[in-house]
Formats: sequence, structure tokens, C-alpha cells
Amino acid sequence: MFDIAILGLGTVGYGIWRIVTEGTGGPEASSIRIRKIVEKDRTGGRYGAEVDRSLLTDRFEDVLEDDSIGIVAECIGGMEPAGTFIRRCLEKGKTVVTSNKQVIANRGAEFVRVAEQTGAGLYIEATVGGGIPVLRCLEESMQGNRIDRVMGIVNGTTNYILTRMRDEGCSYEEALRAAQELGYAEADPTADVEGFDAAYKLTILSGLAFGHHTSPDAFPRKGITAVTREDLLGAKAEGKVLRLIARGERAEGGIRLSVGPEALPGTHPLARIDGVQNGILITGANVGEVLLTGAGAGSLPTAGAVVSDICYAHAHMGHHRLPVL
Amino acid sequence: MFDIAILGLGTVGYGIWRIVTEGTGGPEASSIRIRKIVEKDRTGGRYGAEVDRSLLTDRFEDVLEDDSIGIVAECIGGMEPAGTFIRRCLEKGKTVVTSNKQVIANRGAEFVRVAEQTGAGLYIEATVGGGIPVLRCLEESMQGNRIDRVMGIVNGTTNYILTRMRDEGCSYEEALRAAQELGYAEADPTADVEGFDAAYKLTILSGLAFGHHTSPDAFPRKGITAVTREDLLGAKAEGKVLRLIARGERAEGGIRLSVGPEALPGTHPLARIDGVQNGILITGANVGEVLLTGAGAGSLPTAGAVVSDICYAHAHMGHHRLPVL
Repeated sequence: MFDIAILGLGTVGYGIWRIVTEGTGGPEASSIRIRKIVEKDRTGGRYGAEVDRSLLTDRFEDVLEDDSIGIVAECIGGMEPAGTFIRRCLEKGKTVVTSNKQVIANRGAEFVRVAEQTGAGLYIEATVGGGIPVLRCLEESMQGNRIDRVMGIVNGTTNYILTRMRDEGCSYEEALRAAQELGYAEADPTADVEGFDAAYKLTILSGLAFGHHTSPDAFPRKGITAVTREDLLGAKAEGKVLRLIARGERAEGGIRLSVGPEALPGTHPLARIDGVQNGILITGANVGEVLLTGAGAGSLPTAGAVVSDICYAHAHMGHHRLPVL
Repeated sequence: MFDIAILGLGTVGYGIWRIVTEGTGGPEASSIRIRKIVEKDRTGGRYGAEVDRSLLTDRFEDVLEDDSIGIVAECIGGMEPAGTFIRRCLEKGKTVVTSNKQVIANRGAEFVRVAEQTGAGLYIEATVGGGIPVLRCLEESMQGNRIDRVMGIVNGTTNYILTRMRDEGCSYEEALRAAQELGYAEADPTADVEGFDAAYKLTILSGLAFGHHTSPDAFPRKGITAVTREDLLGAKAEGKVLRLIARGERAEGGIRLSVGPEALPGTHPLARIDGVQNGILITGANVGEVLLTGAGAGSLPTAGAVVSDICYAHAHMGHHRLPVL
């Protein structure tokens, strides 16, 4: 058995709780013991009644000062306090596992430098593609390939909206409302529909795929708010499918990155990724195109990726490999 | 730089040579130096004129006795002499990377026991799915999921034949001849068309996905030689697609494994995998279905997977994790 802490008892944090207590992880996951759950709401918030209350605390320092906790799963999201907590854990030599794409896209390189100094690990599989193991594929399974292109549908919310607009012939506003009712979109959908979320993920992919370190506002980004029903139906009439695509590729003079709507030919491998599914197409110099598809978001898929990282981190204690961010 | 040896200068061995010398691997692959190539034909056989002749030897012992070589890529294929060479390398503490599904399916557990004793590593990504990183996904990226099912098109030769029979309305014999002319099928196609190759791969997947250790003749296996044009066109008329499927799943009383032709609904994720492509659908308890598709065979895709394993092995020298075979 080994001890971990969870920061943030939201959708992902509670998903980790469920996987560990319900035993739906793989054999290695059965060694995980949740020792503390930090939640700013002392009663545990939305999921407080579902967990062992004796593990709840609103003091991050309770985790920091507990030497039995070697691995911390940060599931708060956003820049702060998540960024401060991640940094302080790493400074203390605690390994951090996170699903927080925003803070990793913006401060990942800084965190890696801290981790290098203290010997801590930093694991980020759940930041891109939810439950689809795309980052470890790039890092640990495709070293025999120069990566020439990474192209993906990495935001399920916008993919759901675009799929629904096409299939139901409804407006952007109607599709957004449906997505919100189904829990696929937040009350404030800006991060998704303006392409910020996809840009965070592309920033992370860029480092791992190309060794090209950038920031999420250093490349063109366009969301889907200006996409009309007519755009989608016009594309459909031409046999094309309109999708929000995160794209990174080798080009004259370096790596070219972009996030924006693209009309894909109907035969394109990503044209068949509908609804909240995600799909990432990786082009390697030797393997050609590899396509990974699956659930790109959601409580259990994302938490499953975090738990996988926790197991991986535990197995590599003392000799972590840090991501190229 | 670190030194490796290649056993067998066939399609895969020559592919490794090309990736290393042409520099089409990722950054880590640029540290690989090929020190020796063992080929029973002293002139190097089919690809002898393409490589640095000074590296060629027909004596396996030249590799075994060279202490500078820490990693050996076995690309001979078949049971012998590959099996003996792998075992002797592991006994000497040399890490082995292989694409040889037959010898791993039949002797993998024995090799793991030897490696445990000597501290050597054993890496087998290229044995299943060619260039698709399916095994490391199962081992290192999906520990947060109990694996409930693995279902795949894992043999490109039979998938090409079945696709061609359906699309051209030709007979099995005609499609096989076309596959042989294109280099997709061997002169003696038994291993592919009788389902042996798929059974080797399913045996390996069974260990990694379910911890269920078996042998390739311990479960039902059926090939495609009895599939007729009428079967394929009949399935097509019902909106179905006939494919050779390797399937492993949790069932009453344990793990159920089978290899055989199945009629998939046209909407099934694997129904769209045509020609020599491979596709593996993994069902995890938390993520749901993850689909990996890409080139399941061929010189550079498979060699790319071997080179990835070589890089991975090098990065984990001294603390290898052995596959669950």
C-alpha cells in the first residue's frame, strides 16, 4: 500500500475516490490508499457526503506536512491556488499528478525545473485527451519516430456542439444550451468555445511531440462561436465535416501550431469522431498515421487517467522521467 | 551514445538499420549505435549490400561476448534459433527487444523468469499491432482501469484479403494471390490465414490485459480459409462486415479468448478498419472504449516500435519493469 492525497473534491477528485474505493482500477491501483482530501469547502462540497469525512481537510498544509504522502493528485483546476500547491508539493519532493491543462500549459516548464532539483515526479497524462493515453504514447512509445504532425479533436464540448448543430440543424445557441443541460458544457463556456482549452492541450502536445516549447497565446486560436448552422450544412453538402481542430506540424522554419474550425474531408480519420469523443491523429516518420480515440473528458475516464499516472509514478519512484514541457 | 546489436537482417532488422542511419527516429533514437548485425548468411542476405558490411557476423557469440552491447534487438522471427538466442542474451544480463510474437507467446513467461534473475529487460511492444503502441498503453497507461475486453483486428494480411474479397467480389484464392504479389502475404501464408499469428498476439494481450497466462493453442482458433465470397457479400447485404477478430473478455468463470471470423455491425468501431490496417479496441472499466488504429505491420512501422522499445529500455536501465506474460 502507498499513500496519496487528493487536492480538490470536484468531478475528477471524486472520480479518483470512486475508482480507489470501488476497486475498478487495475491490479496496481489496488495498492493506493487515499490519506487526505483537501477541499476548500470544509464540508467537502458537492461530493462531501460521498467520501470518508475523516479524510477531508481545508488546509493544504496538512498534505504538505504529512511525510507519508509521496504522491499528490491535483484536481482543483485553473491557475490558482492549483499552481501554488503544485509548486510547493514539488519543492517538498512530493510527486504531483494532475489533470490541469491550464496550469501545465502556462507553468509546466517551471514545474519541471523545480522537480529536477528535488527529484520529484510530474505526471500529466490526464491533461490531454481525458482517458485516452496520448501523452505517454508520445513520450514512451513513439521514440522510434520523428513526429511530423499531431492533429486532434481535443475538446469534447465543442465537438458535441458542432455535431449537434449538423445533425439537428440547430443554432449554436441551441446546441450550447443542450450541451449545458447534459453537463458537457459549463455555465460559463468561454474556455471551451473560444478554443482556450484546446490551446492549452496543443501547447502541452507541442512540447512532447516536437520538443517545441511555447505558450498558449503564442499561436493562432479561434473558437466556434462564429460558426453558423449554414457553415455546417454547407460543409456537409460538400461531403465535409466542420470540427474544432488543434493542429501542430513541422513546416518551413519550424513548428506551426493552430487551433480553429477546419472543414475535414468526410474520409478523414477525424471526420468520424462525433459528439463528446476525442480523437488524436499522430503522424510518425516511420509508422505513418496512428489514431487514438475515446472518451476525452468526464469524471471516471479522466480520473482513470490520473489513477494510471499515480500507479506509473509509484512504479518509477526514485527514477522519474520528467515531461518535456 | 549506447551500443546495440541486431539479430537477423530481414525486413524488421533492416528497418532498424534505416531508422538509425537515416535519423528518422525521435531525439532519443539518435543515441543508438549499431555495433553488430548477426545474419546467418555471411554476405548479409537480401539487405547485405545496404548496410555497413564491417558490422555483419554470422556468429551469435560475437554479440554475446561483447560487453559493450547492453541491448539486443531480436528480429529473426520463429521459434529457433530466436528462442535460444533470446534466452542466452537474458542469461548474460543483456536486455532483449523483440518483434517475435511466436516465441513470446510460447516462451514469454520463461524469458521473464530468466530476466528477473539477471536484471535484464524484455521489451515486446512490436509483437502486437506493429507500430501501434498498444502494449505499453495496456501496461503503463491504463492501470486506472480494470480491463474488461480487448478486441482487435491484429493481422493485416487476413484483413487485406477479407477487404479485397468484399470490395472486388473475388474469391479467397484470388485475394490471397493479390496479397502475395503486394508483399502482404508470405509464399506460405499458413501462419496468417489459419489464425496462428492472431492467436500469438491474443496470448500476449491476455497476459497484459487480464493477467491471464495462457498458450496459443489453449483457446478456439479459426482462420479465414473457409470464408467465401458469398459469406462476405451476405454480411454486406445485412450491413455487416466480416473480419478476423481476436477477442478476449471477462466472462463467467474467467477470461474467454477466441480468434475467428466475426460479422461486425457496420457501425462497430472495428468495421471501418480496412486493408492492412490494424485496430485494437480496449474496454476499460472507467474510460470505456479506447480505439487504437494504425499500421500493424511493415518494415518501418514495426522497426519504429522496436526502436521505441530500445529507447525505453535504455532509459530504464537498472530498473526494468518486466511484462506480465
